[in-house]
Amino acid sequence: MKQAFKTIGLISKPKANDIRQTTRALCQFLAEQGLNILVDPETAKHTETLSDQICDIETLAKRSDLIISVGGDGTLLSAARSLVNTDIPLIGVNLGTLGFLVDVSPDDMNNKIKEILDGHFHAEERVILNAQIFRQDELIFQQSAFNEVAIHRLQSPGLIEIETFVDKKFLNTQRSDGLIIATPTGSTAYALSGGGPLMHPSLNALVLVPINPHTLSNRPIVVDGNSTIDISFSQRDKHEAQLTCDNVILPTIREGDRVSIKQHDKKIRLLHPKDHDFFEILRAKLNWSTSP
Amino acid sequence: MKQAFKTIGLISKPKANDIRQTTRALCQFLAEQGLNILVDPETAKHTETLSDQICDIETLAKRSDLIISVGGDGTLLSAARSLVNTDIPLIGVNLGTLGFLVDVSPDDMNNKIKEILDGHFHAEERVILNAQIFRQDELIFQQSAFNEVAIHRLQSPGLIEIETFVDKKFLNTQRSDGLIIATPTGSTAYALSGGGPLMHPSLNALVLVPINPHTLSNRPIVVDGNSTIDISFSQRDKHEAQLTCDNVILPTIREGDRVSIKQHDKKIRLLHPKDHDFFEILRAKLNWSTSP
Amino acid sequence: MKQAFKTIGLISKPKANDIRQTTRALCQFLAEQGLNILVDPETAKHTETLSDQICDIETLAKRSDLIISVGGDGTLLSAARSLVNTDIPLIGVNLGTLGFLVDVSPDDMNNKIKEILDGHFHAEERVILNAQIFRQDELIFQQSAFNEVAIHRLQSPGLIEIETFVDKKFLNTQRSDGLIIATPTGSTAYALSGGGPLMHPSLNALVLVPINPHTLSNRPIVVDGNSTIDISFSQRDKHEAQLTCDNVILPTIREGDRVSIKQHDKKIRLLHPKDHDFFEILRAKLNWSTSP
Amino acid sequence: MKQAFKTIGLISKPKANDIRQTTRALCQFLAEQGLNILVDPETAKHTETLSDQICDIETLAKRSDLIISVGGDGTLLSAARSLVNTDIPLIGVNLGTLGFLVDVSPDDMNNKIKEILDGHFHAEERVILNAQIFRQDELIFQQSAFNEVAIHRLQSPGLIEIETFVDKKFLNTQRSDGLIIATPTGSTAYALSGGGPLMHPSLNALVLVPINPHTLSNRPIVVDGNSTIDISFSQRDKHEAQLTCDNVILPTIREGDRVSIKQHDKKIRLLHPKDHDFFEILRAKLNWSTSP
Repeated sequence: MKQAFKTIGLISKPKANDIRQTTRALCQFLAEQGLNILVDPETAKHTETLSDQICDIETLAKRSDLIISVGGDGTLLSAARSLVNTDIPLIGVNLGTLGFLVDVSPDDMNNKIKEILDGHFHAEERVILNAQIFRQDELIFQQSAFNEVAIHRLQSPGLIEIETFVDKKFLNTQRSDGLIIATPTGSTAYALSGGGPLMHPSLNALVLVPINPHTLSNRPIVVDGNSTIDISFSQRDKHEAQLTCDNVILPTIREGDRVSIKQHDKKIRLLHPKDHDFFEILRAKLNWSTSP
Repeated sequence: MKQAFKTIGLISKPKANDIRQTTRALCQFLAEQGLNILVDPETAKHTETLSDQICDIETLAKRSDLIISVGGDGTLLSAARSLVNTDIPLIGVNLGTLGFLVDVSPDDMNNKIKEILDGHFHAEERVILNAQIFRQDELIFQQSAFNEVAIHRLQSPGLIEIETFVDKKFLNTQRSDGLIIATPTGSTAYALSGGGPLMHPSLNALVLVPINPHTLSNRPIVVDGNSTIDISFSQRDKHEAQLTCDNVILPTIREGDRVSIKQHDKKIRLLHPKDHDFFEILRAKLNWSTSP
Repeated sequence: MKQAFKTIGLISKPKANDIRQTTRALCQFLAEQGLNILVDPETAKHTETLSDQICDIETLAKRSDLIISVGGDGTLLSAARSLVNTDIPLIGVNLGTLGFLVDVSPDDMNNKIKEILDGHFHAEERVILNAQIFRQDELIFQQSAFNEVAIHRLQSPGLIEIETFVDKKFLNTQRSDGLIIATPTGSTAYALSGGGPLMHPSLNALVLVPINPHTLSNRPIVVDGNSTIDISFSQRDKHEAQLTCDNVILPTIREGDRVSIKQHDKKIRLLHPKDHDFFEILRAKLNWSTSP
Repeated sequence: MKQAFKTIGLISKPKANDIRQTTRALCQFLAEQGLNILVDPETAKHTETLSDQICDIETLAKRSDLIISVGGDGTLLSAARSLVNTDIPLIGVNLGTLGFLVDVSPDDMNNKIKEILDGHFHAEERVILNAQIFRQDELIFQQSAFNEVAIHRLQSPGLIEIETFVDKKFLNTQRSDGLIIATPTGSTAYALSGGGPLMHPSLNALVLVPINPHTLSNRPIVVDGNSTIDISFSQRDKHEAQLTCDNVILPTIREGDRVSIKQHDKKIRLLHPKDHDFFEILRAKLNWSTSP
């Protein structure tokens, strides 16, 4: 499978100072392997790159066979956003600190990436959510999310009242600060702070996590990953609400709007070194005891 | 002690439709006891009151020996706000649904209130918080709170970073959606939704409840009730934040502002019937098993 | 499909006093439908049944086309235990109080059951766990569980140290009071008390819920339903532990033992009336707001 | 105040291998200060001590003006047990790992202890609980606890039903795995794993933490530190239960027994270096962010 990856795109963490050494070493290594390299303008700041190798992320996504993201989980998720409608796989190189998604360390980057280029990798697909806002049944906005879609009360002093439907079936009305709908990828992020469970990435599931619900028995609920989640506000409630997809703020939601959330058709494809171990990453990131 | 209560002020829930029967019965009963009655304009809508008995809440607070609040916990807290700098005691009559604070039912209202007027009551003091906003060390706003002072991130897509000091001692820096500082009274309200413990009203304590903290070990912490809690934002954090006292929104907090929270010098004095039982109210409100 | 159900077996809650009316009405109704009836000895106490219609549960399971359980969720789970290796479907009639599994009320029992007998039903499969205890790699005991397998420290004053493997991959070592491994069915039972999430019954998943873990980031984790969970004790730990399957106590686990848990090959088949709604049951059982 | 401490008792962690260096250095330092030294037999194993300086812990407690405990929090709590009825203060030296109670590091032990011997210290009192078991109103056993008294179901497959009274007032009946009654000292220990709040050591309060309660609104409740907590089992419940005080197992509790828990008359007196900071210890032990 080695020949599959001829052109490698590099996307780096923006405004990072600690990135030069890693991106340079990476470019050199890839050049030594006889591969074509494309870099985004951010990466170009840190490397000696020919101008015809520099292109914007959309072009880079079109012309690459493989993307290497250098930075944290956020950098990789941001890069992945450009790949939603492609099938290009993604490798995450961290800057010395392990992430949930970026599992290749600069220290043994060359070995691990060579291994992957040689076709020895563990491929994994991660689902993406698509959130749509309907106003009077008309789609007015949509946005994708890797971790979670979150609905929050906005500047209101009291709780908001949210009605949730799963596959058109009424789940509940909750008074709360909001609701998080998270993928397995997002289960280690904001949803975890909100009291949601961890979910293995291979699980085809979504978790709905109420934020500070007034009713103490309003607990996180895990549903089938192919479910469509529809959310609207109680008629009784005049509050506005804020919708975010990962860290992107969407237009303010008003009474009468409906938010519809389901998995995107396409998934993101991550390539990991063969020895990738999700549980090992969990243990490291959550400071769990490490001895078996 | 009967003679202590000569003038009784009535304050009712605003915009309530279900209040007429209770307020009328109450006025009639108090008149039969030979007591002077003062009512706020809201109550006047529902009773046949002489115009010289109607006055605004501030005047009513000055001229009454005892205030009876008719409505829910919110109505009583709102009435109590007018009494912060007085020593006038307060009785809470509910509209059929027991509250944490309004424990006299319309059904046996006459008996219970007569009992109290006759001097047979259980008096209880509840603390009030005072939140002050300092900008460049100048006090720019202050507000009292019975339940809690809450700090929330405002329209920011990410967490905010909050530094907390207890009696000038650094407690921690937390990344979260915000922080609740609650009194024992407030421990059954928003702080409970946020994962805080219940606290007995007699306890001289405050609880600090982090809202969706990024660090899972950032747990609620109960400190001495006389503590001064100072809160500021991390220098690294450019977000604005919203401060609320109970349900009142305060001016937006900016980087560099300091919020200082401590108990008010004055407390609110509640009078309960002799058989008042806080645990019984807890059991009823939280649907606990009731059999001893 | 009507003809599929010719012989109906009845299994009732043992030692129940409030069961006579329901079981008699049920027998009469089934007889009117021209169906053969078999009853377990417990049910026979409450009905006028011919002696050749009375048989032990195993025989009843073999000879029936459909089992109706009368009682609570526990009665149905107990009946289901006898059906693990058959394909006989099960209907749950409650005694007036809705259960998570027993959703046919005595009030409209005849209509609902007729509907089901006429082939208008919602069929649902629920997984069963099988827990095996290995001592020196020899299987010494096994037991099935519908809700959960739970491991607890036993009379030890301190926490126990548990090593968990998912599909032979090391998950973590935790110091805790124990660990719950629950099915979606069990997610509304003990696992919920332990802080686990709700899981929709259609989800092919298991949840591992640590009980009072010493490390606060040891949170519930949801894994694929086909996973094999292996549990052993740390070598450092000399404590004994107790293993329970639903409410059945298994032999005491000792240092060096291994407990292996995975889904049973067979599932239990529940028949519900067409209007069955899991979310409606959740709302009722957890006292959620009911208005859509 | 220097002269107040003429005889110093040393109590070390039993069966420890890593203790020799610290205890020897400590003995040498104390001898240099011209102080009398007494050691328990455990400490004597690691030091060159004259036989008339070795005595059992009870004698040591009687003859010392100050006790230095060398080990972890458990060692100090165990030493403190011998001091319950005395007023002798206690210093905790750790073995390199900070504890919640043992805050003097071997590294700067000499300076810190000299400071304390010179009268420059921060004195702090910690309450002790006393748990009494009554059978047919007769006291059959009692035991003290620094962290918590815990009641657990014992080998029963199901939950136990516990009735709790606070100062003879009925609090609730709960079905659960048990109940923890913790001091502020214990709020960072088992009670924290059970979902209880942190409590500042200066707070005169107890927290009652239900263990895996069936009713989700059975939340931790903080009550006045002078409260008497009485616990008994529901008449309906035939289970036995296990009572532990810190890590000490008490006689099995049976139906009809009553457990009564309240603060001991005496408190333990801890001496800390002047720069002692409880919040700093919290931050270190709970891995909180450290930058102010």
